[in-house]
Amino acid sequence: MHTIHSDPSITPDLFPDTLAAACLQQFHATPPLVHCLTNEVVQSFTANVLLALGAFPAMVVEPKEAAQFSAMANGLLINIGTLHRTRAEAMLAAIAAANQTATPWVLDPVAVGGLAYRTEFAHHLLTLKPAAIRGNASEIMALSGMATMGRGVDSVDTSLAALPSARQLAQQVKTVVAVTGEVDYITDGQRDFAVPGGDLLMTRVVGTGCALSAVVAAFCALEGDRLHHVATACRIMSQVGGVVSQQVTGPGSFIPAFLDGLYQLKTIGV
Amino acid sequence: MHTIHSDPSITPDLFPDTLAAACLQQFHATPPLVHCLTNEVVQSFTANVLLALGAFPAMVVEPKEAAQFSAMANGLLINIGTLHRTRAEAMLAAIAAANQTATPWVLDPVAVGGLAYRTEFAHHLLTLKPAAIRGNASEIMALSGMATMGRGVDSVDTSLAALPSARQLAQQVKTVVAVTGEVDYITDGQRDFAVPGGDLLMTRVVGTGCALSAVVAAFCALEGDRLHHVATACRIMSQVGGVVSQQVTGPGSFIPAFLDGLYQLKTIGV
Amino acid sequence: MHTIHSDPSITPDLFPDTLAAACLQQFHATPPLVHCLTNEVVQSFTANVLLALGAFPAMVVEPKEAAQFSAMANGLLINIGTLHRTRAEAMLAAIAAANQTATPWVLDPVAVGGLAYRTEFAHHLLTLKPAAIRGNASEIMALSGMATMGRGVDSVDTSLAALPSARQLAQQVKTVVAVTGEVDYITDGQRDFAVPGGDLLMTRVVGTGCALSAVVAAFCALEGDRLHHVATACRIMSQVGGVVSQQVTGPGSFIPAFLDGLYQLKTIGV
Repeated sequence: MHTIHSDPSITPDLFPDTLAAACLQQFHATPPLVHCLTNEVVQSFTANVLLALGAFPAMVVEPKEAAQFSAMANGLLINIGTLHRTRAEAMLAAIAAANQTATPWVLDPVAVGGLAYRTEFAHHLLTLKPAAIRGNASEIMALSGMATMGRGVDSVDTSLAALPSARQLAQQVKTVVAVTGEVDYITDGQRDFAVPGGDLLMTRVVGTGCALSAVVAAFCALEGDRLHHVATACRIMSQVGGVVSQQVTGPGSFIPAFLDGLYQLKTIGV
Repeated sequence: MHTIHSDPSITPDLFPDTLAAACLQQFHATPPLVHCLTNEVVQSFTANVLLALGAFPAMVVEPKEAAQFSAMANGLLINIGTLHRTRAEAMLAAIAAANQTATPWVLDPVAVGGLAYRTEFAHHLLTLKPAAIRGNASEIMALSGMATMGRGVDSVDTSLAALPSARQLAQQVKTVVAVTGEVDYITDGQRDFAVPGGDLLMTRVVGTGCALSAVVAAFCALEGDRLHHVATACRIMSQVGGVVSQQVTGPGSFIPAFLDGLYQLKTIGV
Repeated sequence: MHTIHSDPSITPDLFPDTLAAACLQQFHATPPLVHCLTNEVVQSFTANVLLALGAFPAMVVEPKEAAQFSAMANGLLINIGTLHRTRAEAMLAAIAAANQTATPWVLDPVAVGGLAYRTEFAHHLLTLKPAAIRGNASEIMALSGMATMGRGVDSVDTSLAALPSARQLAQQVKTVVAVTGEVDYITDGQRDFAVPGGDLLMTRVVGTGCALSAVVAAFCALEGDRLHHVATACRIMSQVGGVVSQQVTGPGSFIPAFLDGLYQLKTIGV
């Protein structure tokens, strides 16, 4: 099903639909409560994506409450897209509480690399044991210490080019890394999978990547093989996104159709 | 039309369509300006719901301006979903100004009970004379001091089970309380009404409850019987939401259809 | 194509479709990266409007990062709708960096005039050389020092009545002013244009005006005649908005159809 690559030139196997279908069934049986400390722009879309999948999102932002709530939640998302001082304080409090209660937390390192404040903060977060990291090629390369030319939230590198960085980052931090793009690659540093699908149209809708990270956080709440769970989150978003993109007339009609597609999703790949 | 219940086991009468239709007509004749201090996740949806109904929403968040603006507005919404220190300061300033100018203000006590910071804040707000309170069963039970098992924004209690708490809270605070769920109950502590309708699909769309609280704040701006006005707000949302839920394919297509339904709403129950 | 009016009673010429089509073509050839420091309510819609047009939005809000990012961006939007102290600090840092790198920045003076804190801030911003200002009639009249009866975000004056104020403001500040309403007027104080179109339905959707200001900021990134670029931004929004309003059943279905219309837009006026 999966293989160990010491040679980074070997591309990963496709993530099997049978594994994704089993993870989705497990998710539907135990829908998680997900604490989302995410950026201001995508909060509503992120909540709607989680609700459509049957999960329970909650955004609790005051530092004191964030710690209390993370201890109750099944998963925690940390997205640094609109990071500022007070939110950073809430994030650190939430992560500390999550780590004390063994609640998995996921890092979305939005636009890391080009901007000094968030880059320093993201590197500090790496020391706090994220269960998974989801980013585009530029972000994953920047986090792993490799140079990138990214000028913001748009990735100029391909996900395949970032796969060696993703593997290295996964090994260093002892986490699962998903580097997403035209093809998504998911790795724990030893094993990795490819998830194709999706559509370029999704890059014209704000928050599709950020919402994927929230879905990753939701799937990290499941018992079992985390690599499979993170790959399933990627597979769900790219399958539904790819199908829906063929049915709509633009990014505006994509949004309601995508949420409906997630809501109606019963299994994978059939 | 309505009855006084000393026995909490007696369930309320249905809120009559004739009363709701009259309140809606009054609302359309004098659409209010509503100052919304609400949570970060639902601000856009809340504004669109009020605009669709013909009202004028405005979010003014700086404490100094919040006080100045509440004195100009016809109604004020206080929603503590993403409460933090600065926003709490703005809320207190806005409430003080609203009370000085007799502008009605409405409390949505999101997730109160489980989280210490907001629970303490919400209990303080009860002393500041809200015109109405809108919450789910867990929230209303927590506010009234009765125990609840709620773990966040999702209510695990039914609205009927919370009706005694709602009545007690309404009497203590001298306010109108709407406890919403599969059936909504609206009480001033002496009289109460039931509003059925809505659809489970609405729980898969972020902000339907929060937007209802904004509509309650808008209707509290009307002259007349506040119990009727709050019940009308509930009736509008459950009627349109119930009809629209039958016409759509999921929570994504619900959102535009719901806003269109509110925009096209001419009367109730016909 | 355009004329100089010393007599404010003479109404401007229509902005020609040929000029708008050429500007749109230039925009599509070099889609800009736009730093948006805008209000909390409209961030998601604003980002989706820019993405639909092919531009790259980014919201970077921490004061330290805001300065660093504005120097990388092609345009900067400053919208004071939900101004507060920390965001004001970020805006000033971003504007200073933009001015150092000759990055054009645009002011949307939401609800200026009625509220003291933002009015004082907006008047200070006028000294910092905005490339353009986009507001409704009440806002432009208030900024130029003329009295207005506006009570918030809804404009009670017509755009034509505000044209003399717009011309005076443009001359004083040495900027381009767009005063928008049923007809939009765009002036640099010497030349001016009229852009009709749009639809009353757009006033029932939160953020259409704010998103227009973001599009103005995106077009200000282009080389050439800024008056033409700002008028093109207005023309795009009113053309697509006007066409889409005839095809939808309310403000809810307007949103996805409008984004699709912007995405599909190939030229103007054909």
